[in-house]
Amino acid sequence: MKALIFDRELRLEEVPLPIRIPGTSLVKVKLAGICNTDIEITKGYMSFHGIIGHELLGTVIESDSDFLSGKRVTTEINIPCKTCDLCQKGLFKHCRNIRTVGIDDYPGVFAEYAVLPDENLHEIPESVSDEKALFIEPLAAAVNVLESVDFSSSHKVCLIGDGKLGLLISMVLSANGIKHQLIGKHEDRLELLGTGNASFVQIEDAKTIDRYFDIVVEATGNPGGLAQALSIVRPKGKIVLKSTYEGFPSVDMTRIVVREIELIGSRCGPFDKAISLLEKGLVDPTPLIAETFHISSAYEAFEAAKKSLKVVLRME
Amino acid sequence: MKALIFDRELRLEEVPLPIRIPGTSLVKVKLAGICNTDIEITKGYMSFHGIIGHELLGTVIESDSDFLSGKRVTTEINIPCKTCDLCQKGLFKHCRNIRTVGIDDYPGVFAEYAVLPDENLHEIPESVSDEKALFIEPLAAAVNVLESVDFSSSHKVCLIGDGKLGLLISMVLSANGIKHQLIGKHEDRLELLGTGNASFVQIEDAKTIDRYFDIVVEATGNPGGLAQALSIVRPKGKIVLKSTYEGFPSVDMTRIVVREIELIGSRCGPFDKAISLLEKGLVDPTPLIAETFHISSAYEAFEAAKKSLKVVLRME
Repeated sequence: MKALIFDRELRLEEVPLPIRIPGTSLVKVKLAGICNTDIEITKGYMSFHGIIGHELLGTVIESDSDFLSGKRVTTEINIPCKTCDLCQKGLFKHCRNIRTVGIDDYPGVFAEYAVLPDENLHEIPESVSDEKALFIEPLAAAVNVLESVDFSSSHKVCLIGDGKLGLLISMVLSANGIKHQLIGKHEDRLELLGTGNASFVQIEDAKTIDRYFDIVVEATGNPGGLAQALSIVRPKGKIVLKSTYEGFPSVDMTRIVVREIELIGSRCGPFDKAISLLEKGLVDPTPLIAETFHISSAYEAFEAAKKSLKVVLRME
Repeated sequence: MKALIFDRELRLEEVPLPIRIPGTSLVKVKLAGICNTDIEITKGYMSFHGIIGHELLGTVIESDSDFLSGKRVTTEINIPCKTCDLCQKGLFKHCRNIRTVGIDDYPGVFAEYAVLPDENLHEIPESVSDEKALFIEPLAAAVNVLESVDFSSSHKVCLIGDGKLGLLISMVLSANGIKHQLIGKHEDRLELLGTGNASFVQIEDAKTIDRYFDIVVEATGNPGGLAQALSIVRPKGKIVLKSTYEGFPSVDMTRIVVREIELIGSRCGPFDKAISLLEKGLVDPTPLIAETFHISSAYEAFEAAKKSLKVVLRME
């Protein structure tokens, strides 16, 4: 089968079909999404080598599970050991021995076929299109913002960042009736959000906005976004951190103490809630798709992904 | 009266008695404590100039309030405007126009007399000695750790830092029955804590301790303490930040996101709860007193305070 492998460089290769073991299913991949993490991996993140990719839409073609056989599915990416102390506490996504599909010690989905643990697979409801289903993993990460902090209708909310994740978070906030100020670089992206609850401010004009916010969601991926979040959150307010940063940024920690700010790290989220948002038609992330490439053009796809919103790989 | 003034340098001066206005009381200062913040001010912190000092034990000698007249008192340090939007929300200690006794735009208590707002003054119960009462302000800051996060008996708790504030926090945790690992530099200070709930580990040996902790309190005042807190808190665990740091330290923010850690800034605390701990005899901070100096030896007192635990100034 064709597979996109990262091993110091990206290589599209012909490799043997993966071997299915009990408790796993063989999935024929139809679509796969390129995520910023994939781009980071090609720069050395996680020292990963192997088949990359983790945003999947495919069909189960071989499984011990009658329930899964023949189903359209996507996959959760964390594979916990289930035996360590953190797993025992129910902190599966923080397992000490975690493997992560296409990111850490487990082959990814930028390939014609993938073998995945049965319990990681989620069936896609009929009413959800392939393209929508492809967003379930990053949409779940966006939904996790709501799991990280309690929002109320009286809260003044700001979201910083209008990249892929930022826009998905905006959609999730809007779907939950949460009005928010979106600070970004691309006003034209506002139309991708449909009739949402976001009002847009250019990042250069952000100094003019009416402070302070009760909750600020930081999704820029750069330390400037975090500094801005600290400057606009109210004393005893909350910042939800959705960004990872290169290296160790310099942060005004004293402000956090003196103003008694709460900083909450937030990562992967609940697939069931993401699927439900799509099934109910409350969120439509497909306007974020910039381009679709066949896997045979994977290198061009990666180059495109560095410059635009969601780039999709199709295997057929 | 004698007063210790900071104006680019520390100067002990003879100055006029402060003028009392309605709503304030004239307090004859008996004892005052030197805090790390005072030392920071002598290095330029807050660009403060004027009479410094904010930890007070004194007697009200002139007041419009019959209740306060003649009483032994200590003072809260924050003087909010009560009209700004943050005060309207009840966030008085985060007032936009805040003044802070001896720290920001309000004369301090390293003087023979001080004029302080009536509502900042707290009467000291008879059973609480002068020396104990002098610790109410920093003890309240220590108590604020309990206001910042919910502790349960099943939580594994670590406190990093065995300076003045760290030791007070340890006392407060112990008084509340919270067992904790104390990571510090001075094992001999453990005996100052009495029969507490702390077990001591030298900072160099901290790598050997059994991780992870559900809650870590960071009270070292240096970025190394924060890095250590991040390395020993469990995923989805909480770090209470009691330290302020010089400049903007480099912090592994990605770890906060990936491990979904919560970072909670914590500052001044409730005086009533601190007074209650002293009144019930649950905490005795007086072993932290290293030396007492008359105000006429204020310069020596400041030098001593840089090297030891609590240094006290007496005015009589």
